[in-house]
Amino acid sequence: MANLQDIGLSAAINILSALAFLVAFAILRLQPVNDRVYFPKWYLKGIRGSPTRSGTFVKQFVNLDFQTYLRFLNWMPAALKMPEPELIDHAGLDSTAFIRIYLLGLKIFVPITSLALVVLVPVNWTGKTLETIQNVTFSDIDKLSISNVPSGSDRFWAHLVMAYVFTFWTFFVLYNEYKIMANMRLKFLAYENRRPDQFTVLVRNVPPDTDESVSEHVEHFFCVNHPDNYLTHQVVYNANELASLVERKKSLQNWLTYYQNKYERNSSKRPTTKSGPWGLWGNKVDAIDYYSSEIEKLSKEEEVERQRVISDPNAIVPAAFVSFKGRWGAAVCAQTQQSRNPTIWLTEWAPEPRDVYWPNLAVPYFALTIRRLLMAVALFFLTFFFMIPIAFVQSLANIEGIERVLPFLKPLIEKPTVKSLVQGFLPGIALKIFLILLPTILMLMSKIEGYTSLSSLERRSAGKYHLFILVNVFLGSIITGTALQQLKTFLKEAPTEFPKTVGVSIPMKATFFITYIMVDGWAGIAAEVLRLVPLIIFHLKNSFLVKTDKDREQAMDPGCLTFATSEPRIQLYFLLGFVYCVITPILLPFIIVFFAFAYLVFRHQIINVYDQKYESGATFWPDVHRRLIIGMIISQLLLMGLMSTKNAENSTPLLIVLPILTIWFHIFCKGRFGSAFVKFPLEEAMVKDTLEKATEPNLNLKAYLQDAYVHPVFKGGDLYKHLVIDEEESSPLVPTKRKSDRGSKLNSGRNSDVDQ
Amino acid sequence: MANLQDIGLSAAINILSALAFLVAFAILRLQPVNDRVYFPKWYLKGIRGSPTRSGTFVKQFVNLDFQTYLRFLNWMPAALKMPEPELIDHAGLDSTAFIRIYLLGLKIFVPITSLALVVLVPVNWTGKTLETIQNVTFSDIDKLSISNVPSGSDRFWAHLVMAYVFTFWTFFVLYNEYKIMANMRLKFLAYENRRPDQFTVLVRNVPPDTDESVSEHVEHFFCVNHPDNYLTHQVVYNANELASLVERKKSLQNWLTYYQNKYERNSSKRPTTKSGPWGLWGNKVDAIDYYSSEIEKLSKEEEVERQRVISDPNAIVPAAFVSFKGRWGAAVCAQTQQSRNPTIWLTEWAPEPRDVYWPNLAVPYFALTIRRLLMAVALFFLTFFFMIPIAFVQSLANIEGIERVLPFLKPLIEKPTVKSLVQGFLPGIALKIFLILLPTILMLMSKIEGYTSLSSLERRSAGKYHLFILVNVFLGSIITGTALQQLKTFLKEAPTEFPKTVGVSIPMKATFFITYIMVDGWAGIAAEVLRLVPLIIFHLKNSFLVKTDKDREQAMDPGCLTFATSEPRIQLYFLLGFVYCVITPILLPFIIVFFAFAYLVFRHQIINVYDQKYESGATFWPDVHRRLIIGMIISQLLLMGLMSTKNAENSTPLLIVLPILTIWFHIFCKGRFGSAFVKFPLEEAMVKDTLEKATEPNLNLKAYLQDAYVHPVFKGGDLYKHLVIDEEESSPLVPTKRKSDRGSKLNSGRNSDVDQ
Repeated sequence: MANLQDIGLSAAINILSALAFLVAFAILRLQPVNDRVYFPKWYLKGIRGSPTRSGTFVKQFVNLDFQTYLRFLNWMPAALKMPEPELIDHAGLDSTAFIRIYLLGLKIFVPITSLALVVLVPVNWTGKTLETIQNVTFSDIDKLSISNVPSGSDRFWAHLVMAYVFTFWTFFVLYNEYKIMANMRLKFLAYENRRPDQFTVLVRNVPPDTDESVSEHVEHFFCVNHPDNYLTHQVVYNANELASLVERKKSLQNWLTYYQNKYERNSSKRPTTKSGPWGLWGNKVDAIDYYSSEIEKLSKEEEVERQRVISDPNAIVPAAFVSFKGRWGAAVCAQTQQSRNPTIWLTEWAPEPRDVYWPNLAVPYFALTIRRLLMAVALFFLTFFFMIPIAFVQSLANIEGIERVLPFLKPLIEKPTVKSLVQGFLPGIALKIFLILLPTILMLMSKIEGYTSLSSLERRSAGKYHLFILVNVFLGSIITGTALQQLKTFLKEAPTEFPKTVGVSIPMKATFFITYIMVDGWAGIAAEVLRLVPLIIFHLKNSFLVKTDKDREQAMDPGCLTFATSEPRIQLYFLLGFVYCVITPILLPFIIVFFAFAYLVFRHQIINVYDQKYESGATFWPDVHRRLIIGMIISQLLLMGLMSTKNAENSTPLLIVLPILTIWFHIFCKGRFGSAFVKFPLEEAMVKDTLEKATEPNLNLKAYLQDAYVHPVFKGGDLYKHLVIDEEESSPLVPTKRKSDRGSKLNSGRNSDVDQ
Repeated sequence: MANLQDIGLSAAINILSALAFLVAFAILRLQPVNDRVYFPKWYLKGIRGSPTRSGTFVKQFVNLDFQTYLRFLNWMPAALKMPEPELIDHAGLDSTAFIRIYLLGLKIFVPITSLALVVLVPVNWTGKTLETIQNVTFSDIDKLSISNVPSGSDRFWAHLVMAYVFTFWTFFVLYNEYKIMANMRLKFLAYENRRPDQFTVLVRNVPPDTDESVSEHVEHFFCVNHPDNYLTHQVVYNANELASLVERKKSLQNWLTYYQNKYERNSSKRPTTKSGPWGLWGNKVDAIDYYSSEIEKLSKEEEVERQRVISDPNAIVPAAFVSFKGRWGAAVCAQTQQSRNPTIWLTEWAPEPRDVYWPNLAVPYFALTIRRLLMAVALFFLTFFFMIPIAFVQSLANIEGIERVLPFLKPLIEKPTVKSLVQGFLPGIALKIFLILLPTILMLMSKIEGYTSLSSLERRSAGKYHLFILVNVFLGSIITGTALQQLKTFLKEAPTEFPKTVGVSIPMKATFFITYIMVDGWAGIAAEVLRLVPLIIFHLKNSFLVKTDKDREQAMDPGCLTFATSEPRIQLYFLLGFVYCVITPILLPFIIVFFAFAYLVFRHQIINVYDQKYESGATFWPDVHRRLIIGMIISQLLLMGLMSTKNAENSTPLLIVLPILTIWFHIFCKGRFGSAFVKFPLEEAMVKDTLEKATEPNLNLKAYLQDAYVHPVFKGGDLYKHLVIDEEESSPLVPTKRKSDRGSKLNSGRNSDVDQ
């Protein structure tokens, strides 16, 4: 077990490496040549111009003003300067809400830490249990933890009372935060400018009709059922094939630029490449000619495909974006059930145009339920059995396995140095690769589940990742062993035994988690601000692919907050805080440092760097809240387990009240604020509509909405525009094309009403 | 353990007693004097006249036509004759859906039973395990059960395959039934005549307003937010006090009638009574004069209270019934969120006027969540700890306890015969009284939870009762012991151990449950058709309280289906069927007899007897479906537990698939049909609205809805009618009375828009 010296050493190493990152960042960000890596947001906003335009040649790349280096930590107060309303305006509500999670951590844990250090540390310190046991090694950290209190002691009352105080304080903070977020969101939705998604509803599972096209069917249905509100609609084309063609063309274009640049620099020799896959095999050809002709070929293909998609009725998926005359009509349609059969004509608020995940718009209801079942089972196996395929890969990835599969590598890897390297690293690498791929795998699973917006995909992936971290990092570190072994213990032990087993190990793992917080939290965050990978990629692109300023614009990779991976990681820190605040309070200051540092860094990043791909208006807050509640409940159950092994079983009835109260608090908050993140109140919609009518009486909403929801590959193409303008535009109540001898009583009844 | 002879004996006794009940029923129902007990429904419908009017005096009371006695089982085919659409028309959809539960039992279990008897019984019978064990007593029943198959035998494959076949068959039947019920409900709602609740939404938690009354506030809010649809509204008066006065007056009226009748029959002596409580203590007074004056006093009090309720603004609760111009408007309002704050202006479909539970309309949101938390905790304690207070009462209710509390009874209960009677019966009676009171307690808990309609109260109570039966009857019978002990076992044992513990005991309890089915199912249902209690009460009332035909009408007690208690009991039979269909298939025929017999009896009862208090349109079906799914999952887990004790652990992976599939099936069905029971599709509403507009263009809907939702105590009073007609009726967009210097930005913005 680590003692204070070990912790101190580890802290020193991590603080030093964090400082090194920060110094590197401070120096690199001042160099004009890196400006587009560390301030891309401002370029995208058009506020910052290229510094390379002015000054001497050297000054374009290196900052020679040494005074600026002295103020190298200036970015920290600068990051805090921007007031929150301006921040929402500048970076969006999603980003602002995201960094508020770190702030929330500070709000919860700063008072808890002070109280715990003042009350619980003295209580534990004077417990003097560990000193009396001679043959057990213990660290100074343990003396400050609950382990130092003798079994059955009355001192546990202090821990009990503190558990209550901490819980109620957390309730208080969480309630206020939820309230603030709900108001922020409603205010954001109310004050923001007119956006297409305010008027638009995504309709999925349009039932097939033998007599009418999807577009006609949608128009008729909404003309009949929302006669006063329906305005227009846009069908969805299945442009996945086209999108991949466009993607391939873009990559070829990059290669062409690369070779053209090469040729310009060294015009003595025309660059060559090979025509096979990845330019590795095949005939040697002239690179510029080859890529030019390839691009031309693809352009033709693309044009053909584009025509096919637009003209082929089968390329229209049974989904549509239906727009209404006002926000009220859209709010009504999004919140109500349209058809007798609740699995067709499904309506929901349309995501922001940038937020739409196009490939998933056409999944039918039955397929959706099957996919979700399969993904739930897959997630279970992924969480608990992921070690099995990795162990299998590890068993293959030894010297003999490689020699069998790739015999030509034999002479290389038989060398002693290479051999030992392979043997030492390969097993670890398999696991590492899996962990790096994990977010992608989880995102893929969410995509299979059929969610229709990027924001919901991110939220679903975050949920899956949270489960994985909970089981494999948190529980896995406490009761050492794979998740599979834990599952076995969990199934084999009584429900009251499991919290005990885990609870008992918790105080012993405090030092491990302190080290974890310093490595993953402190140094990791410092690495985040340095942006090493985007820095390298930008300079590579800049040297090889950039010809024009527009190219340079595209070479920038501002990146964005990755909610799906970052949020579950923050949740782990919350969980650790909740668990250890009563048991080993000395861990809390480390968490506070993490939250404060991360808040600072990410506030800087969202101001200067990140460019969010979409804006969902902090729709993720209920998820954050729910996972915090899960963390609280876990900590309360573990405390109960630990207490009952300490001969303080009488505390159980008092402690069982806490999870019940927590669940109730969650239900209460969900009822009170949850719907602000799902529904749009009619009152609000009416106010906005009325205001708009008064201020802009001549607004042509139809023109505004006409091509708001066009698949990105069609964007800018005026060809498309002409086609989507419906020939029936002038008369919203068109005569049906349905044959009169057909259809159920219901349909004919409806249509005859329309025809009249 | 019971053997076949014991079962046979028990069956004989129960069949005989069931037959005795049926014969008694057959004879009693033919007597004209009992006509109003056995055919009250027809009287209420006005189709059947009093038979006492015609014929000789004796014939008025006794049926002397002996031919009719020969056909005494005629009611059975008669009960099946009425076709379902007519039945819905005659008895309502609630009742029809309820008896379909029994039919569903037949649909599920008849094929399962045939298959199980053909396949599993021979497999078990030829297992020959029990015969080889000499020192264990076993019954012939056990030879037919899974116990007779040797451990680890390949014969378990038969059970495994059958478990799958049974599960899929049940899925098939349940899916179809849910589909049929959803269609039935939508058809019922579509074809039924105009009803006030189709146009009306119940609005709760109207926020207080300093400048406007509740009525004005509601009107303004809906005029602004549903300008095209809002028609009118009715405020809700807190008339609970008044209702209790009316109730008391009614009871006094009964006593007056009783003494008047007494005096008429024996006019020599005026009847007397005592003026104290219950007529037991106090001064002797002339009964007729006393009750006349008391009634007069109460009438005055009632009038004063009626005036107070109507004129006092504080008597108006913050809730209202808001009616719309069409079903579309009501559907929109019921399904959407109105206000920024989701805990005010709560809208939901108004229940049918008869279905409204008036006292609960005014509970605020926070109180509601607190109440539900407390009731959840209370339900937990009631389910698991109910034996503790009963044991306490039992310990008090012994001879010494009674002597201490009621010393004057000492000479009586010291007599040996009385003493032994008291000692023998009292403890059992305490439990029996609790079980009789249980549905009332559960209903009271549901009322505290704040549900606003009788139908939802019944559904909630049924859920609670189901839990109680599951824990205390089903599990309690299998692992003998109180629920508290089970809870302990459950907490102390591993999650995989609990199904084993229960699973192992299951085959041994088959004979017990067979007896239970015969006593509770067969004989109980036969007792139901006899209606002994209503029969006695009717004749008592008829002799003492009836003066006019109207009194006789009121003396009838047709009763109604008590969903809250009957449905959970049916669920027990389903559960037994699911559990034993693989383990001891011989139990199934007993269940089939129960379902068939109960279907017959209840179909007869809903045709001839019961008069439902309200009509909810089978809103309870999702609950029935969910509880069937719970039963299936329990049976699958128990089978898994049993199999793993039989050295057939390899079956576990195959069996674990079943509960997962079942949960998925439930989610699928819920998504597919569930909303038909909660929401009202706009398409449907539009069709009905358009039809109505075409057929009845001059309908005065406002007059029709004007006093649809009046508290029953105001019904018929024309005083009220004048008051509710709003003075602002002619102009729906009235100028607000709100002071202009007040209110948030939002409100003033909204109002100024309206004023313009």
